Amino acid sequence: MINSNIIYLDNNATTKVDEKVLEVMLPYFSQYYGNPSSMYYLGGTNQKAIQSARETMKDFFGAKNAKEIFFTASGSESANMAIRGILESDRSKNHLITTKVEHPCVLNLHKQLEKEGYKVSYIGVNSIGEINKDELLDAVNEKTALVSCMYANNETGTIFPVEEIAQEVKSKNKETKMFVDAVQAAGKIKLDVKNTEIDMMSVSGHKFHAPKGIGALYVKSTTLISPLIIGGHQENGKRAGTENVPSIVGMAKAAQLAQDSLDYESTEVKRLRDKLENSLLSKIYNARLNSSAYNRVPNTTNIGFEYIEGELILLNLNDIGICASSGSACTSGSLDPSHVLKAMGVPFTALHGSIRFSLSRYTTEKEIDYTISHMPAIIEKLNNISPFQKELQELKIKKGII
Amino acid sequence: MINSNIIYLDNNATTKVDEKVLEVMLPYFSQYYGNPSSMYYLGGTNQKAIQSARETMKDFFGAKNAKEIFFTASGSESANMAIRGILESDRSKNHLITTKVEHPCVLNLHKQLEKEGYKVSYIGVNSIGEINKDELLDAVNEKTALVSCMYANNETGTIFPVEEIAQEVKSKNKETKMFVDAVQAAGKIKLDVKNTEIDMMSVSGHKFHAPKGIGALYVKSTTLISPLIIGGHQENGKRAGTENVPSIVGMAKAAQLAQDSLDYESTEVKRLRDKLENSLLSKIYNARLNSSAYNRVPNTTNIGFEYIEGELILLNLNDIGICASSGSACTSGSLDPSHVLKAMGVPFTALHGSIRFSLSRYTTEKEIDYTISHMPAIIEKLNNISPFQKELQELKIKKGII
Repeated sequence: MINSNIIYLDNNATTKVDEKVLEVMLPYFSQYYGNPSSMYYLGGTNQKAIQSARETMKDFFGAKNAKEIFFTASGSESANMAIRGILESDRSKNHLITTKVEHPCVLNLHKQLEKEGYKVSYIGVNSIGEINKDELLDAVNEKTALVSCMYANNETGTIFPVEEIAQEVKSKNKETKMFVDAVQAAGKIKLDVKNTEIDMMSVSGHKFHAPKGIGALYVKSTTLISPLIIGGHQENGKRAGTENVPSIVGMAKAAQLAQDSLDYESTEVKRLRDKLENSLLSKIYNARLNSSAYNRVPNTTNIGFEYIEGELILLNLNDIGICASSGSACTSGSLDPSHVLKAMGVPFTALHGSIRFSLSRYTTEKEIDYTISHMPAIIEKLNNISPFQKELQELKIKKGII
Repeated sequence: MINSNIIYLDNNATTKVDEKVLEVMLPYFSQYYGNPSSMYYLGGTNQKAIQSARETMKDFFGAKNAKEIFFTASGSESANMAIRGILESDRSKNHLITTKVEHPCVLNLHKQLEKEGYKVSYIGVNSIGEINKDELLDAVNEKTALVSCMYANNETGTIFPVEEIAQEVKSKNKETKMFVDAVQAAGKIKLDVKNTEIDMMSVSGHKFHAPKGIGALYVKSTTLISPLIIGGHQENGKRAGTENVPSIVGMAKAAQLAQDSLDYESTEVKRLRDKLENSLLSKIYNARLNSSAYNRVPNTTNIGFEYIEGELILLNLNDIGICASSGSACTSGSLDPSHVLKAMGVPFTALHGSIRFSLSRYTTEKEIDYTISHMPAIIEKLNNISPFQKELQELKIKKGII
């Protein structure tokens, strides 16, 4: 457990800042606090720290050149900067392609762009959350300015074949640009953008144990974008505002730590995730897996509990110190069911009772065992008060339980 | 001195994070790190912290309602959000008014907006940096969407009568909106936006001892703006991205400390600034004040040293541990002289040798005395190698020194 009383299984929403990350940040608040643009030593120190962080982030993205990395304040800003930036820099094309399961910072921006006159093709996914690649490629035409496709889905963890998509999109229209929201892939699987046709890729620090309020955008050196935030010369004129030095330094440290933990993610974190998933699916008769069993980031599982309410499950988990979520944090507060699960065609009966568990390298076996031991009773309790008693009985019969 | 070896007189560029600010931030990195949008306790704790910070920022702006405060990542983002936000929400007007001495985040955005088809009136200032208010009011017409005028100039510290301007602009065209960049006023003079006709006002945390990477925008409840960063529901749908909780909490603490120090700013900080200014002007014959002697924030002085190079002065100051600047940090790296001093008509002979000293509540009398004792020798040394020996001799004669 991270806090003495809390089991945090919502690492796709945000993560604890690694103590080693905080440690490297601290001197930049009250000691090396100069403005990186300043002439004196205190400014120069910061400028060097930023350059070094840019090099580290270059390696994290697997990019060719540190000049291809731009620091932003969030994954959302990175995505807005990428998409607006491409459209502002070349107004000759009016068609966009994205998927129905993108994060709101991509999806809602596309809805806004439709209002501004752009045509948008929204590509669907199959029942285990995999993208319909043929549908995407069919949609590419000579007016397609940009394809935006996430690397891994935040709710299901499903990985999309973005490298293949980029290559095939370009072979259909070499002028079409490709943006990849890699916020949920970064720190979980290896990024290697230099060997791909991907033009732009975004990450968010707080998803891999850096603090909130820092993100990065990779932009291929040959790809031109206009700035979203105009002003000073910072970030090579592409993003104005005094550089957030402590967080930039912190994100680079977090990226390096995440890079070093990739093996651990794909073995130990995956083992614990699989243990949790398999146990819940076998112990709870109205549980179903809401994603691809294989093609997934190692830390995420999304399980639908049929005929009961997700919010009630979360409240019960909260009571025993377990943090999980019913979908993207960025869409919570709304009672609409997840747009991702809807696009997958998850049946109505499971849509409202779906829970995402997302682990991290801090998750312990003890925490997973605790969760496994408590979930069946919680679900049983909620099954008993469900208004769908007839359906639950039928499910029991179908599964051979009674 | 802040560090043992450094006298930091560049507080208009950025400030040291107050230790009390850092202290309140720390628990939000690795202890209360939940996503504010989450259902569980760890999320709710953060949501409450943000609400409390929003109340504090409301008081800092002197606003009516905490709902009028939006958190951003910088002063530059706040300005871009305000200006773009007004223009996107109402496309019926195509004329903008701003001043020739705005920060690059306002000025360069207006240059971009001209490329996009807007007409912009750039209003001038007089020789002591005061805005030509009649010229500004004359420019207001029925097509004027927005007037953007800073509260205090970053290079000279000159305060603009933004409350009067807002009132008079509205009496000429009640549909015209007013944006005030208060980045250099916040923490130095009292803000009281609720009793004004100002629609929007921006501040930047790192200018008043909060960390870099956090800012705020006040938007009057009756003023509609479109978001700059589109995505999740955060900030009432006006600014997407997971909230930067540690920095939001830190900025609120910094705002409260700044509010509590306003008297100290206007008495003690002003006394030290005046001591520095008067001493340099009296001890150095080729020094001239580049701003209004009275209508100024208490911490700033901008002094032109005629016939010598500002960059050389800064390097010499750096050698003895004094941090100052030759203009806005956001325009440094360019060899062009300050657009602010140019707009004031500062003569070419002083334009390149102008230095801004900006103090803070951390500045000590000892630091000011040290600076006063070393500056004359530095300037004398540079005078001796100046290529303008004839002009310096003439100035000496004119001033009755020889």
